Amino acid sequence: MSTSYKLIYFNIRGRGEVTRYLFAQAGVSYTDERIENKDWPALKPLTQYGFLPTLELNGGEHSITGSLVIPRYLAERPEFNLAGANPIENAQIAGVANFLQDLEHAILKLVRVKDNKEEVTKDFTEVQVPNFFGKLDGFCSTGGYLFQDKLTWVDFYFYELYEWIVAVMPNILDNYSSLKKLTTTIENLPNIAKWIKDRPQSAY
Amino acid sequence: MSTSYKLIYFNIRGRGEVTRYLFAQAGVSYTDERIENKDWPALKPLTQYGFLPTLELNGGEHSITGSLVIPRYLAERPEFNLAGANPIENAQIAGVANFLQDLEHAILKLVRVKDNKEEVTKDFTEVQVPNFFGKLDGFCSTGGYLFQDKLTWVDFYFYELYEWIVAVMPNILDNYSSLKKLTTTIENLPNIAKWIKDRPQSAY
Repeated sequence: MSTSYKLIYFNIRGRGEVTRYLFAQAGVSYTDERIENKDWPALKPLTQYGFLPTLELNGGEHSITGSLVIPRYLAERPEFNLAGANPIENAQIAGVANFLQDLEHAILKLVRVKDNKEEVTKDFTEVQVPNFFGKLDGFCSTGGYLFQDKLTWVDFYFYELYEWIVAVMPNILDNYSSLKKLTTTIENLPNIAKWIKDRPQSAY
Repeated sequence: MSTSYKLIYFNIRGRGEVTRYLFAQAGVSYTDERIENKDWPALKPLTQYGFLPTLELNGGEHSITGSLVIPRYLAERPEFNLAGANPIENAQIAGVANFLQDLEHAILKLVRVKDNKEEVTKDFTEVQVPNFFGKLDGFCSTGGYLFQDKLTWVDFYFYELYEWIVAVMPNILDNYSSLKKLTTTIENLPNIAKWIKDRPQSAY
């Protein structure tokens, strides 16, 4: 019997969307349970860590929590096939995710800043963007993907961060042609194009 | 032929020490290469991401970077045996690490704060400590370890965070008896006791 999956997250893309991309790309069915903000205070104390996303397997027989833990787990399942060929490659791909997480923190700092907005924005555009996007562009300049020549879960993680930042900085990838090409590759995957068209719309 | 390992990190515990604990506990030999601060500016541009720790396998045949990526990789090797029994358990253990990482960020915020020191300290002691340590204490109240009844890599991650915070808040675990017992368990592991006694001393 195949595994049944339920993803529990808020009604936004946010930290749940990478997992939703993986389900879309792999063509694996799942329940996309979206918590409304008004229901969260009652639910929060019942969760293991006090946050989401959580993935429930087989009606709650097992659960896995964490915005990057879930995609890595699924990607390494044979029916998803969005990970490496062995444990070393899987760790190297997790290393790319770790780097992308630092980019995520830089983006969060930018969008949440209250004081010193000008200073943080200057740092983001002049220091963070060249550092992160420069290195990432190099990673995919040969094989077309962030890890060698294989589409993996971290490409979707990058794409979700890109969706967020391009909404406020439309020219963000102008100097990074390999990353620009990667976003086009992802958007043109038939299952992903369909998901982007059909999914619930939200600002982030 | 067995794998040869070289851990490359700075001459501090910091984000390299969890990996060093795993090598000590498993009794696996490795090269503990410690970079001096003065040598870092020249080395940094040669690294994949611009940060450490990096683990080199078989003299550089493969390398893995990231302070949590490396311990998870090693823990899941049979000769280390400090992970779960299957991919689901390994993801759940990574979920604990993800939660501990949020605690690490709260500790970093506390020790790095310049403005609003009083406010951040109050938040840490009254909000962060009960939240994180309360949940973690619950996790190990039954089986004695953070994941069920098995010593895993996240116990060492917790211990390293504890070492950091107990130096400035000696009574931090007074209300968390299961966590207190866990730290005693870890300190009394023969290989760990020897490592703590023999390792290079540093403030953090």
